[in-house]
Amino acid sequence: MHDCLFCKIQKGEIPADIVFQDDDLIAFRDVNPQAPTHVLIIPRQHIATVNDIAGSDETIMGKLFSAAKIIAAQEGVSDDGYRLVVNCNAQAGQTVFHIHMHLLAGRNLSWPPG
Amino acid sequence: MHDCLFCKIQKGEIPADIVFQDDDLIAFRDVNPQAPTHVLIIPRQHIATVNDIAGSDETIMGKLFSAAKIIAAQEGVSDDGYRLVVNCNAQAGQTVFHIHMHLLAGRNLSWPPG
Repeated sequence: MHDCLFCKIQKGEIPADIVFQDDDLIAFRDVNPQAPTHVLIIPRQHIATVNDIAGSDETIMGKLFSAAKIIAAQEGVSDDGYRLVVNCNAQAGQTVFHIHMHLLAGRNLSWPPG
Repeated sequence: MHDCLFCKIQKGEIPADIVFQDDDLIAFRDVNPQAPTHVLIIPRQHIATVNDIAGSDETIMGKLFSAAKIIAAQEGVSDDGYRLVVNCNAQAGQTVFHIHMHLLAGRNLSWPPG
């Protein structure tokens, strides 16, 4: 998508503090961190929201979790724990319409989750 | 797992308010709802935490998102929005060690997510 911020990041057109990448995914630190570790994991493929996932996207969506596991280990938070959050549309606070999984860690995360 | 609460729910040994199920997944309402819609989506397969996901589990993990999309539509919250949350270990508040995705909707969900 020509004007999608996260597409530009994944293509390297906008800089980001990248912590993980492979052929399918890229992960970088949130510029507005809400916890000591706050990383966004995105598919390289542009999918706007969870409502737009097709059956053929299930493997790539599952890979978000595999990447989260790897990044949590890199960050040293696997054992203490981490929260994964995906927002869909306005009431959830989605602001960039390219699916992204938030990984938050490094502090106690309260309940409810917002 | 013999003593896993969510394994017992998916086998029908403990009742739950089920909103969706197929061969791979089952989804039911949280008994302690934190929003007007609060559903838990779990793989039938016992996987304790995100740290325990294998590469072969990626498709099933992706199906959690497909189920979320279906359930959001059933609940009439697709357009307004919904938040998906997966907690791993203590600092995130994971209490049942069988992977579950929370789907919360029906109110504005604040930021940070806990």
